[in-house]
Amino acid sequence: MSTSRRRLSEFASKASSEFKRRLSVTSQDEEGVPRAGWASLIPMYAGLSAQPLSDGSGVEVGLSIHDGSYPVDFSVQILYFANNPDHSVSELLEEHIVQQLIEFSEDHLFKFIGTGVTEQLTELAPGLCTRLWKELDMVPIVFKIRSTMGREGQAADPAHSQPRPADEQADSAARKCVMYFGPSHIPRLSIGFRNVVEVDAAGKIHLIDGLEEYKNSVRAPTWNVLTKYAKALSDKGTKIAFFSSTPQGGGVALMRHAMIRLLRNLGVDAAWYVPKPSPAVFRTTKNNHNILQGVAEPSLRLTLDRQEEFTKWITYNAKRYWLSEGGPLAKGGIDVCFIDDPQMPGLIPLIRAARPELPIVYRSHIEVRSDLIHKEGSPQAEVWKYLWDRIQLCDVFISHPVNKFVPDSVPIEKVGLMGAATDWLDGLSKPLREWDLEYYMRLFRTQCNEVNMNPLAWPSRPYIVQIARFDPAKGIPVVIESYCKLRKKLERANIPASRIPQLLLCGHGAIDDPDASIIYDDTMMKLQQRPFAQYAHDIVVMRIGPSDQMLNALLTNARCCLQLSSREGFEVKVSEAIHHGKPIVATRAGGIPLQVQHGKNGFLVDVGDSDAVARHLYDLWVDDDLFKRVSEYAKVSVSDEVSTQGNLASWLYMATKLAAGETLKPNGRFINDLMREEAGEPYLDDEPRIPRGGIEVQAK
Amino acid sequence: MSTSRRRLSEFASKASSEFKRRLSVTSQDEEGVPRAGWASLIPMYAGLSAQPLSDGSGVEVGLSIHDGSYPVDFSVQILYFANNPDHSVSELLEEHIVQQLIEFSEDHLFKFIGTGVTEQLTELAPGLCTRLWKELDMVPIVFKIRSTMGREGQAADPAHSQPRPADEQADSAARKCVMYFGPSHIPRLSIGFRNVVEVDAAGKIHLIDGLEEYKNSVRAPTWNVLTKYAKALSDKGTKIAFFSSTPQGGGVALMRHAMIRLLRNLGVDAAWYVPKPSPAVFRTTKNNHNILQGVAEPSLRLTLDRQEEFTKWITYNAKRYWLSEGGPLAKGGIDVCFIDDPQMPGLIPLIRAARPELPIVYRSHIEVRSDLIHKEGSPQAEVWKYLWDRIQLCDVFISHPVNKFVPDSVPIEKVGLMGAATDWLDGLSKPLREWDLEYYMRLFRTQCNEVNMNPLAWPSRPYIVQIARFDPAKGIPVVIESYCKLRKKLERANIPASRIPQLLLCGHGAIDDPDASIIYDDTMMKLQQRPFAQYAHDIVVMRIGPSDQMLNALLTNARCCLQLSSREGFEVKVSEAIHHGKPIVATRAGGIPLQVQHGKNGFLVDVGDSDAVARHLYDLWVDDDLFKRVSEYAKVSVSDEVSTQGNLASWLYMATKLAAGETLKPNGRFINDLMREEAGEPYLDDEPRIPRGGIEVQAK
Repeated sequence: MSTSRRRLSEFASKASSEFKRRLSVTSQDEEGVPRAGWASLIPMYAGLSAQPLSDGSGVEVGLSIHDGSYPVDFSVQILYFANNPDHSVSELLEEHIVQQLIEFSEDHLFKFIGTGVTEQLTELAPGLCTRLWKELDMVPIVFKIRSTMGREGQAADPAHSQPRPADEQADSAARKCVMYFGPSHIPRLSIGFRNVVEVDAAGKIHLIDGLEEYKNSVRAPTWNVLTKYAKALSDKGTKIAFFSSTPQGGGVALMRHAMIRLLRNLGVDAAWYVPKPSPAVFRTTKNNHNILQGVAEPSLRLTLDRQEEFTKWITYNAKRYWLSEGGPLAKGGIDVCFIDDPQMPGLIPLIRAARPELPIVYRSHIEVRSDLIHKEGSPQAEVWKYLWDRIQLCDVFISHPVNKFVPDSVPIEKVGLMGAATDWLDGLSKPLREWDLEYYMRLFRTQCNEVNMNPLAWPSRPYIVQIARFDPAKGIPVVIESYCKLRKKLERANIPASRIPQLLLCGHGAIDDPDASIIYDDTMMKLQQRPFAQYAHDIVVMRIGPSDQMLNALLTNARCCLQLSSREGFEVKVSEAIHHGKPIVATRAGGIPLQVQHGKNGFLVDVGDSDAVARHLYDLWVDDDLFKRVSEYAKVSVSDEVSTQGNLASWLYMATKLAAGETLKPNGRFINDLMREEAGEPYLDDEPRIPRGGIEVQAK
Repeated sequence: MSTSRRRLSEFASKASSEFKRRLSVTSQDEEGVPRAGWASLIPMYAGLSAQPLSDGSGVEVGLSIHDGSYPVDFSVQILYFANNPDHSVSELLEEHIVQQLIEFSEDHLFKFIGTGVTEQLTELAPGLCTRLWKELDMVPIVFKIRSTMGREGQAADPAHSQPRPADEQADSAARKCVMYFGPSHIPRLSIGFRNVVEVDAAGKIHLIDGLEEYKNSVRAPTWNVLTKYAKALSDKGTKIAFFSSTPQGGGVALMRHAMIRLLRNLGVDAAWYVPKPSPAVFRTTKNNHNILQGVAEPSLRLTLDRQEEFTKWITYNAKRYWLSEGGPLAKGGIDVCFIDDPQMPGLIPLIRAARPELPIVYRSHIEVRSDLIHKEGSPQAEVWKYLWDRIQLCDVFISHPVNKFVPDSVPIEKVGLMGAATDWLDGLSKPLREWDLEYYMRLFRTQCNEVNMNPLAWPSRPYIVQIARFDPAKGIPVVIESYCKLRKKLERANIPASRIPQLLLCGHGAIDDPDASIIYDDTMMKLQQRPFAQYAHDIVVMRIGPSDQMLNALLTNARCCLQLSSREGFEVKVSEAIHHGKPIVATRAGGIPLQVQHGKNGFLVDVGDSDAVARHLYDLWVDDDLFKRVSEYAKVSVSDEVSTQGNLASWLYMATKLAAGETLKPNGRFINDLMREEAGEPYLDDEPRIPRGGIEVQAK
């Protein structure tokens, strides 16, 4: 870059060379090649500002560094662009800032977590935020920062104002930015008026600006249908809203955050509402969930008291936040309503009463055991009756495309199928550069050390990972058995020690989920028994906090993945692993077989078949060609149906139809197929697609 | 406690017993006795609510647990108080909640960081917040939480409202509480309208409620004068305000936070204002500081450009925030003005112009080298001229009672002396129970591990600590020399290995202070040289973050302290160590000799005399009687002048006099003495007092 610069104020802080020496570590990578690295990086924040010079010859750029409590350092530079015919001002500005941040972080061993960005800077460099998020794994938060001083003691008057120094603007942006982060350096969630979920701090957080990145991460037909229906909705000014029970912590919330982010970029009028949390009601609904799946204590019932409390809670929320004048469910509110979760059906009769014409789509993503709900007087019958009394008033009933998920009381013409989705651009799946991977891996090592867990030897040795909650259905004992069988095979094959993998079992999850504690204890107990004990020192079992990027890093650095569940919903983690190019061995359970192409992007085994798992892992270990072939194919094999873009298209298709007053009768088909047919975007042979055959969602 | 309880909802979460087993560690204490402990505790938040039953027979208590991102668990219990004539409802309620929190934290290995408390609960249990802060080291934040449901869909109407469930109230308080904490689990600072520092989140954080704790931690005469002048001011409605440069990060800020907290409890109308930070101006003022002390590069000057920028900055702040109508410095604003820091003198002429009658006290807490400011054309003369042109308009000039701190251009009748202060009830000095000490020590160990630093072997071995910034004046090389000499002596004396101390050098400090990096590098270099290298593995050198309690824990668990500065201000850390009952060895530098009574609560040595330091440490090591005598005496030997209460009294005395229109001419005396004389509270023989003799603040 040939931009000329004038340094007005340079960074004053000096990194300690001894500190860098002390933190430099050398280890071997998988191939035994020594690699340099850093023992730890310091989490840090920044503020960025820019102001064009009055004569138009350049831009004054301010950069402020903040450690979360105090401002640490700053610089101000003027960039002159006059002689740069090859690049736009915005490109040069973006490149300058990205390079400055990289240099500063490498010099001081910093990991930048987030940055405040002045609105004026985003106008000058519209691609900056996306680059910061994608390339530097920083969370950019945009603020309107005053750029003039105003006349002293008077209100700002543009005619008489003088520019506010760039360092002050950057510093102000940094301070504001830090306010948005909570403990453990994660942006805090905010809930706004009428309990709307303020995704990305109500739009202040800019992870992905514009549509380019979204377009480039899916195939053309997907993009065509998505933009077609988005345009239809925005042209008509159709208003849609999602209602679900919690704003964070589960698969539904992850999807909704990603969807609202994309909808904002698409210009569709969409919002997402949640009720005020009631711990007591959430305990009831968790119990309902376990009852319906047949895994609760038989004595647990949805008593009349609990029913009443449940109804009262949703009624209170609905009337207070959404049905009252000006609310999304009042007259003049939204045009199409999407309701998620078995916590929320109580909302449906209330909407029907207030706005009989409003189309309602209900999405069910849990298994309801048909065999049990037909048993008169059973706890399952009781719970299902309560729910179905309310759900039946909906227009469309969306289910995961998984066998036996829909009870036969649901008329098949109302049933449409959709899988779950994940986002290729969010923290769980975006590619992380080496610097950031190291930061998260080191954090993970620290957490292992804190709880006296075996250390993960990576990068000196490879590891196999199963990322899953500590839940009885996740097949954790089979994972351990399979790993031990693999070890035996590898011993017989005289694989060198540096290529012997460790096993990592980890997952997000509430720190004190009662089930999780039981399964964790069972797991640790099993590891003390023969024949597993001899490998126990190589098995890392960790519950980790809610950091998307840490899971991403653990997946990125793994050699293979497992998903050995005994029962499962759609489990989008399987697609995430495949999309990362990780060969996966997974069970034929729930929606998993829809995501794995056996022998091509991974391997399917029967539930509990640890011999088969060990055999596939062994093949992947000794046959490098096989490993590479599976890994390479995996990266390009995931259907767009599993992406935010593909999934959202189906929602927008439904919204378009329903808002136009059309009746939608999916008759048990995939919404995606109805949409693609209607839009004239048929599947061509090479476009990956979730298999359609062999699913009986309403099997008795 | 014989209160009867009814458990409506019990905690559902179950701690993992394997996890507890894994985290249980055994180590030896200093006497070689094995002690159980926990490898780590999980930081956690809570929410607390209470609601009297309508029939008055008891109180419904809600307790919600939150991990910083998600709610984790909750309980609701009803406490019936009818048959408890021996205890007040408030006592029983406080005890119940404290016990619940202790049980839950011990069961799950949690360390509670903060808790939301509903206002209604604080009314029922006014002592609760103080107990939570003092006994459980939790930060209680009080919120007005809606306690009724309101009628559905309508505004709340007390006549028709029904109580809101205790779990929802507690949950709401917990969620609000979490919002107040930033990265690293420290409450974030807030700055309000007109840049007022919102100490304790503008009073929402309740660390110490009422005056009892304050009264009990000082002697009667101190309390008498403090309350006398506080009452005088509050009776008259006198308004006072402090102006200083930064709201956090230094000694001045620590003092002001503690003072405003106490002033709120005393009912005095007081506020504290800071300017909008300007990184460029702060760099200038830091340079000024170094110039005045003669430690800057000789080429560094306060140029006219910088002077102009400096003046413009303070003028802008003054006019925008404080002089404009309704501001504290406008007509009808405050009655007495206290100005701190060499960043702020530019404010004085502006006040004089706007409100000639407003009394102004300026406090200088840095050394100004008289010898250098008299050198015509020197950088020192230039800086001092700029400052003194402005400072001379003040009414009283307060200085630390330290030799040569005041240039002779300051008329002696304006000069009054006051030391710095520290707070016995804040995070730095309050006693921490074992549980909390372990949490902070473990955090410290993790930080050492993260940067590949030697581990602190405590509690298996004792350690000696110097808590100080990495600053050339802190005598760090002498600390290392002294420690190595001590080690030689201990070797000759055949002290058992478990009693051989480690050395800990640590301090708060900006992570990339340029000076700090140089000193840190010098220190690490020195440790590689003979004869120090052989002990380097026992020397722990750490820069740590802004956690008061971590410093407190490191001091609490140390056996002895050092403060071997070559130049010093008042350095209140010395008194903090002594107040903790830690025998200290410190240099005769700056204000240190005012705090140490040689041979009684510690030992004084000449600057650089490592032989003397090693000798005193050795004596403390081999002579248990000496150690105990010094330690016991230390605890009761600190003068109240060094406490928030004693220090604040002097400020309030000045405010009372000046607000009444009296002229205050301290003539170089301690303000404390003028006050005690005037209030008729003379010093009795046994009341500890900073020595008065031998100080020449204006020595040429």
